Amino acid sequence: MTFKINHHLKNSLARSGAITTPHGSIETPAFIAVGTAATVKALTPEQVKSTGSQAVLANTYHLHLRPGEDIVSKSGGLHDFMNWSGPTYTDSGGFQVFSLGEAFGSGVSKVASGEEVSIDAQDQRISNAKKAKIDDEGVSFYSHIDGKHLRLTPENSMQIQHKLGADIIFAFDECTSPHASHEYQLKAWERTHAWAKRCIKEHHKLSKGDKSYISLFGVVQGGRFEDLRRLSAKELAKLDFDGFGIGGSFNKSDMGTAVRWVCEELPVAKPRHLLGIGEPSDIFDGIENGIDTFDCVSPTRIARNGSVYTYDGRKNISTSPYRSSLAPIDTLCGCYTCENFNLSYLHHLIKSSEILFTTLLSIHNLHFITKLVDDIRESINHETFYQFKSDFIAKYYR
Amino acid sequence: MTFKINHHLKNSLARSGAITTPHGSIETPAFIAVGTAATVKALTPEQVKSTGSQAVLANTYHLHLRPGEDIVSKSGGLHDFMNWSGPTYTDSGGFQVFSLGEAFGSGVSKVASGEEVSIDAQDQRISNAKKAKIDDEGVSFYSHIDGKHLRLTPENSMQIQHKLGADIIFAFDECTSPHASHEYQLKAWERTHAWAKRCIKEHHKLSKGDKSYISLFGVVQGGRFEDLRRLSAKELAKLDFDGFGIGGSFNKSDMGTAVRWVCEELPVAKPRHLLGIGEPSDIFDGIENGIDTFDCVSPTRIARNGSVYTYDGRKNISTSPYRSSLAPIDTLCGCYTCENFNLSYLHHLIKSSEILFTTLLSIHNLHFITKLVDDIRESINHETFYQFKSDFIAKYYR
Repeated sequence: MTFKINHHLKNSLARSGAITTPHGSIETPAFIAVGTAATVKALTPEQVKSTGSQAVLANTYHLHLRPGEDIVSKSGGLHDFMNWSGPTYTDSGGFQVFSLGEAFGSGVSKVASGEEVSIDAQDQRISNAKKAKIDDEGVSFYSHIDGKHLRLTPENSMQIQHKLGADIIFAFDECTSPHASHEYQLKAWERTHAWAKRCIKEHHKLSKGDKSYISLFGVVQGGRFEDLRRLSAKELAKLDFDGFGIGGSFNKSDMGTAVRWVCEELPVAKPRHLLGIGEPSDIFDGIENGIDTFDCVSPTRIARNGSVYTYDGRKNISTSPYRSSLAPIDTLCGCYTCENFNLSYLHHLIKSSEILFTTLLSIHNLHFITKLVDDIRESINHETFYQFKSDFIAKYYR
Repeated sequence: MTFKINHHLKNSLARSGAITTPHGSIETPAFIAVGTAATVKALTPEQVKSTGSQAVLANTYHLHLRPGEDIVSKSGGLHDFMNWSGPTYTDSGGFQVFSLGEAFGSGVSKVASGEEVSIDAQDQRISNAKKAKIDDEGVSFYSHIDGKHLRLTPENSMQIQHKLGADIIFAFDECTSPHASHEYQLKAWERTHAWAKRCIKEHHKLSKGDKSYISLFGVVQGGRFEDLRRLSAKELAKLDFDGFGIGGSFNKSDMGTAVRWVCEELPVAKPRHLLGIGEPSDIFDGIENGIDTFDCVSPTRIARNGSVYTYDGRKNISTSPYRSSLAPIDTLCGCYTCENFNLSYLHHLIKSSEILFTTLLSIHNLHFITKLVDDIRESINHETFYQFKSDFIAKYYR
């Protein structure tokens, strides 16, 4: 893998560039489509490509549980299994195990809306904490599918990810709750840092012969504490990683700041991926503060809920105003869905629970977000980023 | 609409030909894909086309209830609404109303497996009979969506279908239960015959200006009685229809015979459509006895159940033998799914309830049945029909 920076936005951490993998290049900044179970939900690989998506990120935790990395490997790895010829990522499984453990039922998500979790939710978090148990060696947890007892360690996360065979894989990390104390976060950071070194060692052991193309990204944690975020980034920067992921969950208001702390410490020449983030304002904030790539389930998830992105904001088209509209979702959009179907048809498909609506809305949303990031890249190259951002935000969030 | 016969199979009612509509031609015999609610379930129009499907049949009853024919008409009619540029059909709504009435909960389907319905099922049929009530003017029924009281008559079935604007529409008929007495069937036939004349009258009234392209097919009924089937066909043949549908439900063993009775009476020069039939053996039996086109939900319905057609018979690929198979569904198949995905991936998608499996399996099944009918057409043209049929049936049903 190589990373080349084309342009640094003046007086900013933002930059444009290109990541080149053995399965093709990714122009950055880029939005990476999520294909949790080796499928971008409701879309064929050709439909994903038609949205402008350059790469797909699959989930190690999900694929380990089902169908198992050996099945994927037997088909020739993730690319061949899902028939996606472009670049791929797998995450480390850390976030999913965190979701089963500390975050389970707590209402904690990647970007919190700002309010603290309620007492009820905290109680529930405690009672559910036993679904995943962390020790210095790794994490023990129960499968959400069949309750089977499983264990993830830095070593077997690397082994699983090497079998899956994505171009870019992530070190196994402990993703902490944003509500955890400084004391706990420091302890978690020490553990994650030790795990990072074990991941690199195992990765090097596995990176032989036909698996030598795989690149390993370290994952920066540290919750919402500046000192811990900077420490995490600074220490990981010293290790032999090909790039970095930024993990954890954020408050909407302080995400940009937390990303800035990290990106100020990370080496300029290596790519930075913001894990699981992807609403329009988050994307602008991330890029402005030094992020190169993002992944997020939102475009396909909100599609299955009948919601779409438009330049005038997010809309749910299952509501009655769209029942007889002959307009496309967005007249400014050039996606397959907007070029071929009007709102009255899409509204009808949603009301009739026809599977096709999930496909058509996912195509639109993925195209919208991918195009937005493409446009942001252009705005960096042309030094028009701030104008583009303020115009977009004013219209989208008015 | 024109219909041209290319070849009559020797000593048989089977023939090959072409129906030409204002939206394109249909080489016959042909399998028509079902798009109940103006969508072939889980497929984009391009995916439908990629299966070799030449035409789509939508349901009047469903579209009348939701979104309503006015919404469809506002978009320019069925073709524009669903973005299908090829030929289209709409059925009359008769079968669906029958399903709500006499057949409701009785286990009666298009092709019964042979056994009589149970007493329990018959009781249930009687208790549910009030969901639809037939009189000489039309049928009153309650919407299965919101319980709203609705009425279909020959006149408004024509009005609805003209608004939907398919190339080929069907006369409104009373579809009787195969368990109904000869006395009742005769009465129903008289009613359907009177309705046929009213449909033609209304159709002529509506066939002005830009709706002059629409062709009207009469629907032959008569249950399982030879005299009534022949009478129905003979009398409808005298009316000014552009073609004929053959309705009703059949026993698997006697379907071919019932079709033969009808096709011996119908004019040779007009196309014949067997409504709602489409399992491989039924298709062979239908074509052998004079059928030109079929429609059936089976290919997409069994796909959503994890089942696929193969030249070795029907298989459910959610079962464990397919868990790690690197083969495609059928090595002889050239569909998009078989060319790009192996069974272990498809099995994984089913097990993970990933929407994509419904799309990929529907593509395969629709391609399989469409290709089968294409091959039967070729076998008619080359006078190899009987050999082709016995080879296929021996392999498929062994």
